[in-house]
Amino acid sequence: MNEGSTSTARAIEFWFDFGSNYSYLSMMRVEALAAARNVTIVWRPFLLGPVFRQLGFENSPFVLQKEKGAYVWKDMERQCRKYGLALTRPSTFPRAALLAMRIALLGANEPWIGAWCRQIMQLNFVGDRDIGSIDVVSEALDSLGLPVQSVLDAAQSDANKLRLREQTERAISKGIFGAPTFFVGGEMFWGNDRLEDALDYCDTIVARQ
Amino acid sequence: MNEGSTSTARAIEFWFDFGSNYSYLSMMRVEALAAARNVTIVWRPFLLGPVFRQLGFENSPFVLQKEKGAYVWKDMERQCRKYGLALTRPSTFPRAALLAMRIALLGANEPWIGAWCRQIMQLNFVGDRDIGSIDVVSEALDSLGLPVQSVLDAAQSDANKLRLREQTERAISKGIFGAPTFFVGGEMFWGNDRLEDALDYCDTIVARQ
Repeated sequence: MNEGSTSTARAIEFWFDFGSNYSYLSMMRVEALAAARNVTIVWRPFLLGPVFRQLGFENSPFVLQKEKGAYVWKDMERQCRKYGLALTRPSTFPRAALLAMRIALLGANEPWIGAWCRQIMQLNFVGDRDIGSIDVVSEALDSLGLPVQSVLDAAQSDANKLRLREQTERAISKGIFGAPTFFVGGEMFWGNDRLEDALDYCDTIVARQ
Repeated sequence: MNEGSTSTARAIEFWFDFGSNYSYLSMMRVEALAAARNVTIVWRPFLLGPVFRQLGFENSPFVLQKEKGAYVWKDMERQCRKYGLALTRPSTFPRAALLAMRIALLGANEPWIGAWCRQIMQLNFVGDRDIGSIDVVSEALDSLGLPVQSVLDAAQSDANKLRLREQTERAISKGIFGAPTFFVGGEMFWGNDRLEDALDYCDTIVARQ
């Protein structure tokens, strides 16, 4: 883990959940945008469900508020068209993806983290696959050439499970209330709409030093 | 009133409330952006309070959710810096502005509507003045060279009061759940972040015809 990296110049913390539709938009864009600006991504998978429950919501606000929920999928269609991304509205939303999230945490500093995250997001938001199932997760690991059983075992170790709970607690203590959320030098940016602003902010910090 | 204008090509409906902070950002930008694209603005003041209550919120989500509320004012600071807008966090939020809203409805097709709306927004979000008070409203009317008493009388007529209630009911029936909201050719766009997309959408409609 790279816990101290928030203070590193030219680094962006990317807090996401695979079930989050606006996290999908950022996930598919962040690596190219960050690379173009020479910014390092610090991957921060966390569980949005416990964050919502902490805030008093029993489900995604996009489910609880039907007007907002209806709008969000129109917005997603338009946003995906703008970014050139495919989209299939998942037949289950939000989709729990605990095992895939544990693998993302396990691989947060591994070279395959970006590919893993994009793969899972595309399975959910393009393939409409059940990313909560061990079969789909195993298939995704295999398609990336990763050792399926050893990754599953490590992801499901007590230590890794605990780390994901702790990371989710950290999200709450940092004031995170949705996903995606970005941090750059202690500044919080919420939502895919702020990804570019967050990356631009890296330049501000460097200029100050 | 220009009720049929939603179907007019190159027109954007701008639904706003003077108490809404993100409406402030759009208000200060919409006229220049629309003019540059030859798009007509259809001004749609409505009361956000009854909309929130209809959705089950007793106040602005930015007040009810303290984490989001704390974030929103950081976001506002950054957004205002980006757009070159002044900002003072209002000491009362959200500020009720019923009389000023009634005047906006009264003037929705008048040449002074844009100036009126910007004036009230600046009094609230820059001057931190009580835009709910008749004194501040009268001062604002006077500063624009408008006939104070006759405007106040017309704004407070039963007919105009009823029209604002009806316009708010229409907002609810159109699925509006926040402000600002834009409609272009029946498509809904929510939030200041979508103002440019909404204006771009005017070109799509024209291209289709």
